[in-house]
Amino acid sequence: MSHTTREKSKLLSRVRRIRGQVEALERALEAERGCAEILQQIAAARGAINGLMLEVMEDHIETHLAGAQTTSAAERREGADELIEVMRTYLR
Amino acid sequence: MSHTTREKSKLLSRVRRIRGQVEALERALEAERGCAEILQQIAAARGAINGLMLEVMEDHIETHLAGAQTTSAAERREGADELIEVMRTYLR
Amino acid sequence: MSHTTREKSKLLSRVRRIRGQVEALERALEAERGCAEILQQIAAARGAINGLMLEVMEDHIETHLAGAQTTSAAERREGADELIEVMRTYLR
Amino acid sequence: MSHTTREKSKLLSRVRRIRGQVEALERALEAERGCAEILQQIAAARGAINGLMLEVMEDHIETHLAGAQTTSAAERREGADELIEVMRTYLR
Repeated sequence: MSHTTREKSKLLSRVRRIRGQVEALERALEAERGCAEILQQIAAARGAINGLMLEVMEDHIETHLAGAQTTSAAERREGADELIEVMRTYLR
Repeated sequence: MSHTTREKSKLLSRVRRIRGQVEALERALEAERGCAEILQQIAAARGAINGLMLEVMEDHIETHLAGAQTTSAAERREGADELIEVMRTYLR
Repeated sequence: MSHTTREKSKLLSRVRRIRGQVEALERALEAERGCAEILQQIAAARGAINGLMLEVMEDHIETHLAGAQTTSAAERREGADELIEVMRTYLR
Repeated sequence: MSHTTREKSKLLSRVRRIRGQVEALERALEAERGCAEILQQIAAARGAINGLMLEVMEDHIETHLAGAQTTSAAERREGADELIEVMRTYLR
């Protein structure tokens, strides 16, 4: 089972909180709130996405690379390639 | 008029696209899609939020700090304080 | 006078500390220290450069955009263009 | 042998280039060059450190987590802990 399935309820809670932040941002724009408030809302949503990203990357490492049950070199090879690809995008 | 009001339709388009990305991520988690796909979706949403952040910061600079009509030192002082506060959060 | 001239001694202290961190990293590689230690040294140097960047950007905003003496629209235009260019590189 | 030892000459070249960038920045400050030029130099040094960081993290994953010879669960556990620690610092 994938770690994003195993941790599904934890991750869905985080994603729904982020969706709530993005919806609040949309309402703030529609209501023509001040730009300082909107900048702070964007920064908060960005921080929440960064936190989610880090969480899923850590689960990925634990499951596919470090786990005691991860015995196959092929699984680790694939897990490493996926991690490195996202790190390259992320850490540009 | 605030720049987030002046640029309201442009910004709302971006925010709605980000909301769509977050909703797609939520559906992918519910459908128990693979972790590599989910990591890529999170990275894409993060990139879109970063782009929005940069856009609003640039509009903020143009309006409150650089604009030819920005004649008041008090307005520039306030605009600078807001910009620096968000930069400190963002560039930690 | 440019802010990087006005704040010269403060900025030189920071840059020399960063140079010291990079030299220590070079010595650690030559001495074949463990990879965990080297990763931590790189992360520390990166943090110090981020701090310097933020400091100079803030001085730039204060001097060319927010300063009570910044009366010319042309100066603010140029200062804003320089700031936005570096933000685009930085916040990719 | 540690990957930072195995890749020593490649990493030393990168670190020496970064040291050269930091020294050039120091000279630019001493020579009181313009702030726009100095901001660009800082951004370039930051980009080079980010590149080095990513390179060492990738080598770390290849060696301690994905490598065909990495047979011990204890080695992978330690490698994962080190990686996650630096990711938490890095991706704050």
